[in-house]
Amino acid sequence: MKRIYSIALTTFLTINTIQAQVNDSITLRVIFNEILKNGKCYSDLDYLSNKIGGRISGSPQAAAAVEWTKQTMLKIKPDTVYLQEVMVPHWERGEKEYAKILNSKSIDSKEVPICALGGSVATPTGGIVANVVEVRNFEDLAKLGRKGVEGKIVFFNRPMDPTIISTFESYSKAVGLRWGGASEAARYGAVGSIVRSVTLSQDDYPHTGVMGYNDSLPKIPACAISTNGANLLSKLLKTDSTLKFHFTMSCQMLPDVKSYNVIGEIKGAEHPEEIIVVGGHLDAWDNGSGAHDDGAGVVQAIEVLRAMKALGIKPKRTIRAVAFMNEENGGRGGKKYAELAKQNNEKHIAAIESDAGGFTPRGFGIEGTSAIIKTIQAWKPLLEIYGLHDITAGGGGSDIEPLKEQNVTLIGFVPDSQRYFDYHHTAIDTFDKVNKRELELGAASMAALIYLISVYGF
Amino acid sequence: MKRIYSIALTTFLTINTIQAQVNDSITLRVIFNEILKNGKCYSDLDYLSNKIGGRISGSPQAAAAVEWTKQTMLKIKPDTVYLQEVMVPHWERGEKEYAKILNSKSIDSKEVPICALGGSVATPTGGIVANVVEVRNFEDLAKLGRKGVEGKIVFFNRPMDPTIISTFESYSKAVGLRWGGASEAARYGAVGSIVRSVTLSQDDYPHTGVMGYNDSLPKIPACAISTNGANLLSKLLKTDSTLKFHFTMSCQMLPDVKSYNVIGEIKGAEHPEEIIVVGGHLDAWDNGSGAHDDGAGVVQAIEVLRAMKALGIKPKRTIRAVAFMNEENGGRGGKKYAELAKQNNEKHIAAIESDAGGFTPRGFGIEGTSAIIKTIQAWKPLLEIYGLHDITAGGGGSDIEPLKEQNVTLIGFVPDSQRYFDYHHTAIDTFDKVNKRELELGAASMAALIYLISVYGF
Repeated sequence: MKRIYSIALTTFLTINTIQAQVNDSITLRVIFNEILKNGKCYSDLDYLSNKIGGRISGSPQAAAAVEWTKQTMLKIKPDTVYLQEVMVPHWERGEKEYAKILNSKSIDSKEVPICALGGSVATPTGGIVANVVEVRNFEDLAKLGRKGVEGKIVFFNRPMDPTIISTFESYSKAVGLRWGGASEAARYGAVGSIVRSVTLSQDDYPHTGVMGYNDSLPKIPACAISTNGANLLSKLLKTDSTLKFHFTMSCQMLPDVKSYNVIGEIKGAEHPEEIIVVGGHLDAWDNGSGAHDDGAGVVQAIEVLRAMKALGIKPKRTIRAVAFMNEENGGRGGKKYAELAKQNNEKHIAAIESDAGGFTPRGFGIEGTSAIIKTIQAWKPLLEIYGLHDITAGGGGSDIEPLKEQNVTLIGFVPDSQRYFDYHHTAIDTFDKVNKRELELGAASMAALIYLISVYGF
Repeated sequence: MKRIYSIALTTFLTINTIQAQVNDSITLRVIFNEILKNGKCYSDLDYLSNKIGGRISGSPQAAAAVEWTKQTMLKIKPDTVYLQEVMVPHWERGEKEYAKILNSKSIDSKEVPICALGGSVATPTGGIVANVVEVRNFEDLAKLGRKGVEGKIVFFNRPMDPTIISTFESYSKAVGLRWGGASEAARYGAVGSIVRSVTLSQDDYPHTGVMGYNDSLPKIPACAISTNGANLLSKLLKTDSTLKFHFTMSCQMLPDVKSYNVIGEIKGAEHPEEIIVVGGHLDAWDNGSGAHDDGAGVVQAIEVLRAMKALGIKPKRTIRAVAFMNEENGGRGGKKYAELAKQNNEKHIAAIESDAGGFTPRGFGIEGTSAIIKTIQAWKPLLEIYGLHDITAGGGGSDIEPLKEQNVTLIGFVPDSQRYFDYHHTAIDTFDKVNKRELELGAASMAALIYLISVYGF
């Protein structure tokens, strides 16, 4: 009897599991259909990129982006939309930067494209003119020492490695020079620093990005040079090592400004206290339109809410779309969000960030317990038909990272990475570089994963 | 003793297998490195797209493309480079097409973008002016019958389905109207046909493509209208069903022209008689530059040869890069290739085609025995680290399809499909739409698979 009961129970559970899988599969199909047919994220991104544009923290455009995000979320009619106050750094680029290479005889000059790195001090009026010393890394620099560097401009010229398949991996290996190069150069008496743009493209667009100063060292102006400019400078240095570089920048750091994270929330029907975050960052560098970085992530997060509401899905757990402020040069929005979550005793079960561009989906990178990673990997049969093959350990995103100490499972949405660093932090990170379907598929991929987490929890 | 021997043998074989896998893994890494660091396919594509451009069969540009491909292959110094003569259709678009919508009061007209479908006859001089009847499919058309269609222009307006994830699948469901629409319309007495461009983009670029006539029915002019144009025409028809459409086209079919497949070959070191083909098609529609379709496939096939030679790889089996002529409007190159292979008693073990654009790699689609599909799927651990997750049954390509009756395993290279039909057969299938790394990764993916086939055979 017991055995029969046991078989009956097993059969019942198996049938129930199969039924649940079929239901999940149908719901995921419905979510993808809704977003691919009626998605608003592409037109939202058009507005955010083209009507607001670059929106670095503290700028009028950042304020406009906050207001637009709030209004856009309100139109979806989630349960609540609110702002989370956060003080952010306010750095301004000032007038367009200018640079030229002067040969040692001062009989010829070549203009090259540069831009100030975010956080850099300005040059004196009229700019800096100095000899240049080219290095590949901090070890080269240390070998040159004060004797080889003092009074000069240090030119960090290490290309990204093209053989690494994930461009994020090669980026992370190259970007240290951008962040810390100026202070390392100043340690040996340099008067300025130039870093090769962190991209695999060979072109004329300098890539900005945040840098930081070591407060115990002199603060010297730091710029990025386009890859073509870097190649030219390197080539000229080989035959004319006493050439000079002249650059002017009028950027400045101003007092902090009040700004906001923008949050829209659908309350969970069964476990409202368990929160799933989906987000991107609202701020974007001033030199482009912040279309891929990270307008895409913001409009995708909004799209997740929109699709849930449009389909009448009442999630078991709370889903919260967050547009984080100040990822690019401070990460204050992400920190504030985590701080308030802790202060309010909120229970976050997962946070998903899209900050790798609006490209075709590949999968998710998960920072969580191995049990949770296995749970998500067990959903592969439901996700692979949408191109989500790559579900692996390791991931997250800088805005959700501060939630880690609260034991929140962090998930990075992984789109294809090949084109991202062609546009990243440049004047050409514009709306026309975003493909409608790729953007929508990204939003649908996240909505699908969030749906599954909202049903099963962890 | 026997048992010990057996264990020893098993251990030996296991170690050998592991060693082979390690060696393969290293060779694949070396192939990817070579192509990502020193690849020439991107600059080759620049030349083919920008210096030669659209190269429909029989055109001077097609002749230039043959000569360029031969010269480019010769520079690589494979064992042989040769041409395969093939007679191809010669259709010319003539002057730029023109179309406008005239309202029924003839007091207003709106110009809309159209292009002739490949193979269409011209309109009479001065064009055709007639009422329009809109249908979604052949069933709609049959219901209208001669009474509803005679003397009119039939407007086939069925959008591609955006909910299908693979755009090739949705394309294949929509393209039948383009191929057969004109003759079906003529069956009921239509004087012209318009087909909605087969794309998910909403824009002003009409998509050409081949059409065919049923010889037992009158031949009427057939054009494609841009999706924006189709939406406008459909909208206007709803309130003004007796509006007229005026279009002029001066295209014509001329006598067949002598042309060529271009072939470069590295002889196999151990099994020279076993041939592996890698190819794309050299012809491309005249209205764009044929960058993705299929300049990409041609330069990738050349790149496979180049990388093998540059790395000094001496493949066990013969590798043959083929630039097929006339895929777009006749497929004569593919047929000729298969015909000569049969005639010369050649033994092809596999043929791989790249004709889905130079986009980021996803995998391969295989048309072969289940044993061979399993063999290739067993290589997944070697291929997945390069993003090649999607190795499935079903695939091939139209140029290699004629080899099927010789029991050749056909393999279609599968890049991501989302952007392809934004450009396909339009004026904007241009070099700037191709990403260097995505193109190179595609070439390296094929080179990797071909290397494995060349080592192990089937």
